[in-house]
Amino acid sequence: GLTLAVTKEQIAGETRVAATPDTVKKWTAAGLTVKVQTGAGLGASITDEAYTAAGATIAKTVKDTLKDADIVLKVRGPAKDEIAALKAGAIVIAMLDAYREKETLNALASAGASAYAMEFVPRITRAQVMDVLSSQANLAGYRAVIEAANAYGKAFPMMMTAAGTVAPAKAFIMGVGVAGLQAIATARRLGAVVTATDVRPATKEQVESLGAKFLAVEDDEFKNAQTAGGYAKEMSAEYKAKQAALTSSHIAKQDIVITTALIPGRAAPILVTKEQVASMKPGSVLIDLAAPQGGNVEGCVADQIVDVNGVKIIGLSNITASIATDASALYAKNLQAFVGLLISKDGALAPDTEDEILKAALVTHGGAIVHPNLKDA
Amino acid sequence: GLTLAVTKEQIAGETRVAATPDTVKKWTAAGLTVKVQTGAGLGASITDEAYTAAGATIAKTVKDTLKDADIVLKVRGPAKDEIAALKAGAIVIAMLDAYREKETLNALASAGASAYAMEFVPRITRAQVMDVLSSQANLAGYRAVIEAANAYGKAFPMMMTAAGTVAPAKAFIMGVGVAGLQAIATARRLGAVVTATDVRPATKEQVESLGAKFLAVEDDEFKNAQTAGGYAKEMSAEYKAKQAALTSSHIAKQDIVITTALIPGRAAPILVTKEQVASMKPGSVLIDLAAPQGGNVEGCVADQIVDVNGVKIIGLSNITASIATDASALYAKNLQAFVGLLISKDGALAPDTEDEILKAALVTHGGAIVHPNLKDA
Repeated sequence: GLTLAVTKEQIAGETRVAATPDTVKKWTAAGLTVKVQTGAGLGASITDEAYTAAGATIAKTVKDTLKDADIVLKVRGPAKDEIAALKAGAIVIAMLDAYREKETLNALASAGASAYAMEFVPRITRAQVMDVLSSQANLAGYRAVIEAANAYGKAFPMMMTAAGTVAPAKAFIMGVGVAGLQAIATARRLGAVVTATDVRPATKEQVESLGAKFLAVEDDEFKNAQTAGGYAKEMSAEYKAKQAALTSSHIAKQDIVITTALIPGRAAPILVTKEQVASMKPGSVLIDLAAPQGGNVEGCVADQIVDVNGVKIIGLSNITASIATDASALYAKNLQAFVGLLISKDGALAPDTEDEILKAALVTHGGAIVHPNLKDA
Repeated sequence: GLTLAVTKEQIAGETRVAATPDTVKKWTAAGLTVKVQTGAGLGASITDEAYTAAGATIAKTVKDTLKDADIVLKVRGPAKDEIAALKAGAIVIAMLDAYREKETLNALASAGASAYAMEFVPRITRAQVMDVLSSQANLAGYRAVIEAANAYGKAFPMMMTAAGTVAPAKAFIMGVGVAGLQAIATARRLGAVVTATDVRPATKEQVESLGAKFLAVEDDEFKNAQTAGGYAKEMSAEYKAKQAALTSSHIAKQDIVITTALIPGRAAPILVTKEQVASMKPGSVLIDLAAPQGGNVEGCVADQIVDVNGVKIIGLSNITASIATDASALYAKNLQAFVGLLISKDGALAPDTEDEILKAALVTHGGAIVHPNLKDA
């Protein structure tokens, strides 16, 4: 039968793991042999014993774990020693960050691995259950609010006390994708007064359905763009100027700003300028989820708290690692569904090479980089 | 006119401050001279400029700040250099932690200061606005949940995602005073399934009014005790054994436990034994608000995260310092009301020595320790 292997993540601060006892159980039931490197789950509060109880074998080293492995599951791209330990033709599935991690891609190609980049899974209905960007972004949005509440020297909810009323925090969410929506929902739960904005006017309805207020200059141009729906349409220079002025005066009044604008394969757009940061009150907190791609907030430094006259800019390069247990559980389920495309019901390797999901995610195969977006880069 | 002074707190990690621009404004309007030591408000995100704008004078050193001061406001008991700089007969108002900080009390007495311990203000209706224990405990309860959410590797709310459902966190609040009630409310806001317990059966109703479940063996003995109301009544050994068994099996299933049982002037009671800690799942989090008095959780070490097989015990000796802006705002309002008992409308010193609030809080006067609870200790 097939052997599936899970190693301990090697990137500093990466606490997630690519399998849980729950997914291991499913695979062993399907007849696969599952090997897990010792300690792989500890960052996500999963012990070796829990994996063993689910039917996995614990291996000590990377080499031991990957020996004879047909399918290797990772959170992040494999390290050099992992690639060196792969057997010929092994399948590697991970969030490879393929646009940026060229060296890893080349090494995987040279090793003859068939590597799938989970971030390339297309956003079609059938693939929702494998959508790692959504599953992780959802938790990132929740976690961004917890980080903000933790760094903020006041309470989020309004509190009526004998000594006076504590005003609710004002939170502004910039970018209303999956992360932004969960940030809105969480900030609302905690009692903040929440506003949000996005370049896609169609998100106004989603924001309002969560009980938050959408921030936009709502002129005719906006309304037309809104009706057009879907993705962002280029607005006029005049509109952009009006919107920028509105945003600036709004940011100056906020206690919490959370930015979530990440564009795959591109530098993050600046959403908050240093002048806007300077306009905020001491004690205000900005959480920048785009830190790994340069940040949405001017002055943001990944994994540092930058203090600008008492305003904190917090750029988190891997916020989901702070919620590793849930992030691992959902990621592992995403992988479980994806692996289901590669194996037959009786546990044999049987990838449908014409499946559009597999085709979209396959980045290296037969000794070469095969993904069209990556070949000439 | 009178001079009122506020120095920068000297105890490590004490970020709060005893006055805000808001309270300063009230005092200067009443004709008082207010002096604030430079940087006193920074931990609470209050700049020197904000105090100046409210009418205060910024002084550089402790000595400069306290020179000629009639009333000195502090969060915690004054340091030696502060006591040395007091003018004869100065009034000092602070949370003196009078049962434990004997050395400070003696020094205040020797210096001839009239010192008031804010934690001794009686819990009568008229004094609610001066009740520092309540104002700080309320924020401590909120903050305990934020700390728990921050340390916990999962989300608090239930989340329905394409990759599966994330179960809500189970949170158990032990001790239902002001802090416990706010912890219940906050954990509920964040979406946890919340239970709570207290030795006072009368708190059941309060817990349920916040949408949480009260954990108790609800036999006849409990029901009788509940009707009796008010403070804890000694329950039978048999009842206690049944309740202990119920609590143990409950704790083993919890993700989050927050303990809040602080008894003024006494060591904190153990609410969670080391066996109970060992019964919890890896990844669970205990927040112990009684850490400054030894802790409610066996194995708790103040200001450390103790890891017991993946279960985190977090003992916070000064949790309100993490929410310093609001904590300072409410504390400053408490002090403003208290100072109102000491001065007349035209800003002259006029304490009503027969006022039961002043009598209860006065600990040193005329060169001696005068509080009945402290004299023979």
